[in-house]
Amino acid sequence: MSNLSVQLLLTGDELLNGDIVDTNSAFIAATLKDVGIAVARKVTASDNMNQLVSELNAMSEQADIVIVNGGLGPTSDDYTSQALATLTSCPLELNLDAKKHLETWAMRRNAVLSDANMKQAYLPKGCEIIDNPIGSAVGFCMTFKECKIICTPGVPNELYAMLGSIITQFIQPLVPNYQCYITERLVVFGIGESQLQTLVSEYFSSWPNELTLGFRAQSPFVEVKISTKEKNNEALLHTYTSKLHQLIGEHVLNIEKIHDFCLAEHTYQLLKAHNKTITMAESCTGGLIAHMFTSIPGASSTFNGSFVTYSNAMKTKMINVSEHTLKNFGAVSKDVALEMARGALKQVGADYVIAVTGIAGPDGGSAEKPVGSVWIAWGSAEQLNCHYFLIKGSRHYFQKAVANRAFDLIRRQISNCDAPPRYIQGDS
Amino acid sequence: MSNLSVQLLLTGDELLNGDIVDTNSAFIAATLKDVGIAVARKVTASDNMNQLVSELNAMSEQADIVIVNGGLGPTSDDYTSQALATLTSCPLELNLDAKKHLETWAMRRNAVLSDANMKQAYLPKGCEIIDNPIGSAVGFCMTFKECKIICTPGVPNELYAMLGSIITQFIQPLVPNYQCYITERLVVFGIGESQLQTLVSEYFSSWPNELTLGFRAQSPFVEVKISTKEKNNEALLHTYTSKLHQLIGEHVLNIEKIHDFCLAEHTYQLLKAHNKTITMAESCTGGLIAHMFTSIPGASSTFNGSFVTYSNAMKTKMINVSEHTLKNFGAVSKDVALEMARGALKQVGADYVIAVTGIAGPDGGSAEKPVGSVWIAWGSAEQLNCHYFLIKGSRHYFQKAVANRAFDLIRRQISNCDAPPRYIQGDS
Repeated sequence: MSNLSVQLLLTGDELLNGDIVDTNSAFIAATLKDVGIAVARKVTASDNMNQLVSELNAMSEQADIVIVNGGLGPTSDDYTSQALATLTSCPLELNLDAKKHLETWAMRRNAVLSDANMKQAYLPKGCEIIDNPIGSAVGFCMTFKECKIICTPGVPNELYAMLGSIITQFIQPLVPNYQCYITERLVVFGIGESQLQTLVSEYFSSWPNELTLGFRAQSPFVEVKISTKEKNNEALLHTYTSKLHQLIGEHVLNIEKIHDFCLAEHTYQLLKAHNKTITMAESCTGGLIAHMFTSIPGASSTFNGSFVTYSNAMKTKMINVSEHTLKNFGAVSKDVALEMARGALKQVGADYVIAVTGIAGPDGGSAEKPVGSVWIAWGSAEQLNCHYFLIKGSRHYFQKAVANRAFDLIRRQISNCDAPPRYIQGDS
Repeated sequence: MSNLSVQLLLTGDELLNGDIVDTNSAFIAATLKDVGIAVARKVTASDNMNQLVSELNAMSEQADIVIVNGGLGPTSDDYTSQALATLTSCPLELNLDAKKHLETWAMRRNAVLSDANMKQAYLPKGCEIIDNPIGSAVGFCMTFKECKIICTPGVPNELYAMLGSIITQFIQPLVPNYQCYITERLVVFGIGESQLQTLVSEYFSSWPNELTLGFRAQSPFVEVKISTKEKNNEALLHTYTSKLHQLIGEHVLNIEKIHDFCLAEHTYQLLKAHNKTITMAESCTGGLIAHMFTSIPGASSTFNGSFVTYSNAMKTKMINVSEHTLKNFGAVSKDVALEMARGALKQVGADYVIAVTGIAGPDGGSAEKPVGSVWIAWGSAEQLNCHYFLIKGSRHYFQKAVANRAFDLIRRQISNCDAPPRYIQGDS
């Protein structure tokens, strides 16, 4: 990490009164961390001129960089520009670049600029402005007591769009020998963070000093990050990333970024590449698996339809599960899961299928089949598999966990993985 | 709002480096706001003794109450107790109540207390402890420079379980003439926050000073909150809540708290009360409507199954939409939506149905049927309705908005609302 001292000042009554959860500061911190800069402290202040000036004054004595987020809007409770003007004794004046930005912004939207909007063009004299590619408020930067104060808009999308160029333009020049991190990431499903750490530390008797290795859990996934600052170490970085990938094996997903539907996305990409289709027969997940799949843009090229078969009667009527099987083994059974899978495959004429039947709770469990029991069937007409899991947690947790495992199991089959996942080993 | 000055100190490197979004401070602020106390400032500090002591020292000079969150855990980077000991010059000592709490906690879990755990029993001499009904770390309270410093655990569920008694035990006595707010809430769907404010201010020429009225948007819902501090005003509160309810009409949901699935929950409650069942035929929402419905515990008493009919062929095969209608009007049409609804009703034998067909995007739109077009059909065999909407936004936004409107439309029919919702008036 660099020695640069960075502090954040978040402004807005809505951040103090609990109406809004502040996600911007975590975004700023994570982005800075990626380039080796740590945030030392953050303060959230109300929309109050005196408080803002006093916080900024104190921060500029402690920090090399202060990033202010919020308070650049057109309304009367947006005080950031004025606070900076007071702090630095640089009065507000019409900034021609900011005015031009506002005019272009209004023209694109066929809107007329109000007086309130025009307020956003008045900035402290001598500040450097920062382009906002989305919204009406430009950002700006000033130096006070050798501290760079960078003011950014509170609207998340606008902040996201501006932060990259802020780092290049204002922060990078302050870091001696600044070099952007070269980073590789692996997204992992099916091994917990601590298991993964143990696995890695047992395998690598020594880890090269030149490479930084980090783990970040974002349940149910873990991101493994390997990075270096030296261009010279790039080959080493690739070598060790490959070694890690090999060690973690098929638990690594072919996905760049963790999101709620990334296992569905990975499955979709595989199906599309193989020109195959999928269907589902869902009991306990009640449509969640189809929903996750159809959240992916373009899903229709690999998906024609699916069934939510909640009651026994619908399992029989929609997808031909035999009444005999239901009666003999119960709805939550291997036989029913397999019949659901076969029935859905046949009805839809798909290449692959996922079928699940279980007890999501909170009620409906028994000693023999407790809440959390689920049979997942997956595969093709030629190769159909089925496995029992007991997944403890809330109804939502259970439904999501079942859906993610189901996607994981089918994507493993589509890509011809041989080894079973860790969450199956030993309990089958 | 009370004049009490409250500040929050959030501790933990994970809050500063962007790994974790801080939701605890919003929870504390919202809970305090409900009893009329505002948070004036919050500071997030790293796991560093000197920084903690210095922040606490500054805060205790400005505030009547400081709530510290985090840093009470068993590991070596948990510094809160030690920082308080240093600040107040009250050395850490074995607190017998805390020790007893730890022993009971361990016994319940059949666990042996480690040395690390035992560290949690060492608290500044003379502090008052605060029971933690869930976790190992008790909270505690100390007074320094006439400021009450209240230390709470960072684990969200533990904080949630403790905050109520913290307010009663430590904060309430500091507020002269403290009276808990008496509050009524209305959850509104289908009118935006600003429309709602206009509606209310136009209707009430004067609003009684004794009642506080507030709006809070939590898209796509708005919470209207009416409150008073005086027991004497309770009748007035009820009168005005009724007036507001009447004014906003059927846009008010019979729901206590906004959550992602509250329209599904409301629909489920109505179906259960009327002993009726529902089914769905989903094209563009791809299972989301069924998923939302089956997220509600007990859904199986009012839901037997549903269809995701993505392709034209599946619309025909699963729920009997005629090929002729598909060819003549296209999949995104009133006729197809109605045939989907009738087909699903018949296949499942349900009392009510929701059917949706539209273009979620980002691709697939045309000049005639742009992305965002959707036909929603809803009702019973006796009374089936259908309406066109154009809903602009991302794929996810569109899918959620369609699902919520569909639930809103069917729950209006089940409860025999006469007036159409505002989002239909004028565009049908």
